[in-house]
Amino acid sequence: MCQLLAMNCNVPTDIVFSFTGFAHRGGRTDTHHDGWGIAFFEGAGVRHFVDHQAAIASPIAELIKRYPIKSTNVIAHIRKATQGHVALENCHPFVRELWGRYWVFAHNGDLKEFTPQLDGAFRPVGSTDSEHAFCFLLQELRRRFGDTPPALPALRAALGELVRQISDFGTFNMMLSDGTALFAHCSTKLSYVVRQYPFVTARLSDEDLSVDFSQVTTPNDRVAIIVTEPLTTNETWTAFAPGELLVFIDGSPVPVA
Amino acid sequence: MCQLLAMNCNVPTDIVFSFTGFAHRGGRTDTHHDGWGIAFFEGAGVRHFVDHQAAIASPIAELIKRYPIKSTNVIAHIRKATQGHVALENCHPFVRELWGRYWVFAHNGDLKEFTPQLDGAFRPVGSTDSEHAFCFLLQELRRRFGDTPPALPALRAALGELVRQISDFGTFNMMLSDGTALFAHCSTKLSYVVRQYPFVTARLSDEDLSVDFSQVTTPNDRVAIIVTEPLTTNETWTAFAPGELLVFIDGSPVPVA
Repeated sequence: MCQLLAMNCNVPTDIVFSFTGFAHRGGRTDTHHDGWGIAFFEGAGVRHFVDHQAAIASPIAELIKRYPIKSTNVIAHIRKATQGHVALENCHPFVRELWGRYWVFAHNGDLKEFTPQLDGAFRPVGSTDSEHAFCFLLQELRRRFGDTPPALPALRAALGELVRQISDFGTFNMMLSDGTALFAHCSTKLSYVVRQYPFVTARLSDEDLSVDFSQVTTPNDRVAIIVTEPLTTNETWTAFAPGELLVFIDGSPVPVA
Repeated sequence: MCQLLAMNCNVPTDIVFSFTGFAHRGGRTDTHHDGWGIAFFEGAGVRHFVDHQAAIASPIAELIKRYPIKSTNVIAHIRKATQGHVALENCHPFVRELWGRYWVFAHNGDLKEFTPQLDGAFRPVGSTDSEHAFCFLLQELRRRFGDTPPALPALRAALGELVRQISDFGTFNMMLSDGTALFAHCSTKLSYVVRQYPFVTARLSDEDLSVDFSQVTTPNDRVAIIVTEPLTTNETWTAFAPGELLVFIDGSPVPVA
């Protein structure tokens, strides 16, 4: 199984601290060594880094741990291959365009015999169940809403239906963002923490490293971190309920009617 | 105007030497400081790096100069903004999927009032004439050939027609690859060199750096480098004719009936 990490914030924030603990699961504190990837939204643009090397050995992961790229929406993934061989085209997150926006997607889990018909608008390049599911999601969103992106409540409702359909085929913990909102769906395991004023010192569970967020933030900053396994030992993580789809905007989960 | 660099080879080769000279045009030996980008095919996958910082100042450009990523098809671009503001989403190269393959595109030049109708299948995320042209190219290829990729002669013929149409609107030096072939079109300036046995020592024109390729190659290696401005002072570069579209496969231009 893979590991997922996402960040959604109200001001552009770097993910160096959380990524440092997360990346160590890629080959050191865990067995996820079949590649990794991370995508940062920056305005409408995306910086997308993938590597089929273990995150622990990757010069690009090393760069990201040292280069504080600031973003309001980030999705990262460390891969333990279940379907699809170890190759760059099978590394999450995947990036595609719909409605003149980039969409970023990553998946944890395993879908069995999930082969919905794809009409050709979005076709997988690699051989994973995950990329197939992503193409299906975007195809169905376009089929429902045509060329006009819907308002958030309609989008959330459509995604809710689609992820339920996909979840019938297996475990579908997933993260999806178009750079304005971050959608996170839990099949089996997903937790989040909201970091906001008054900020505390957080201690990574995978490495002997702490950071006092009050030193690197302003009182108005708010940052949500969403993960398959909590990253820190002294923060309160909220577990998703199985089947729950949450929408994060500006650093916290928002109710969407 | 921007600068373009592409590499097409018969075996995966690193681009460290050529990129080093090229990157120095991004803010040091030239005035191209409005961002840069590079994409490497690796099998069916793509590593895509873009940065809105000048290449000379970018930690990611620094990584690429030191990390020998091996690829058979690479496209790089240094931007001098003519249309579209300086932002990540306006940095070339652009990457999209068609026919279950990634396509990578970069453009040098300036198109005036180029606003062809886009049907929604491929929409620009940023505001450049270049991304608009790329979306138009992919849309028209899909319109002509449907869901089945054509054989190379038909693809080349279609691209030839399409780039002529686009060139009516201005300068359209461009590079395009699907990871198997590299298409390069010259409006005004493009040159290439084929490096093969017996390899020589090449000297960068932008920096005091030489490399003896015979030390880092095998006799079977063949590498084509295509650029807007020749990179070395002691190799023989072949200039494209205006209007010429060449197809590079396995490190050399190939005749396509």
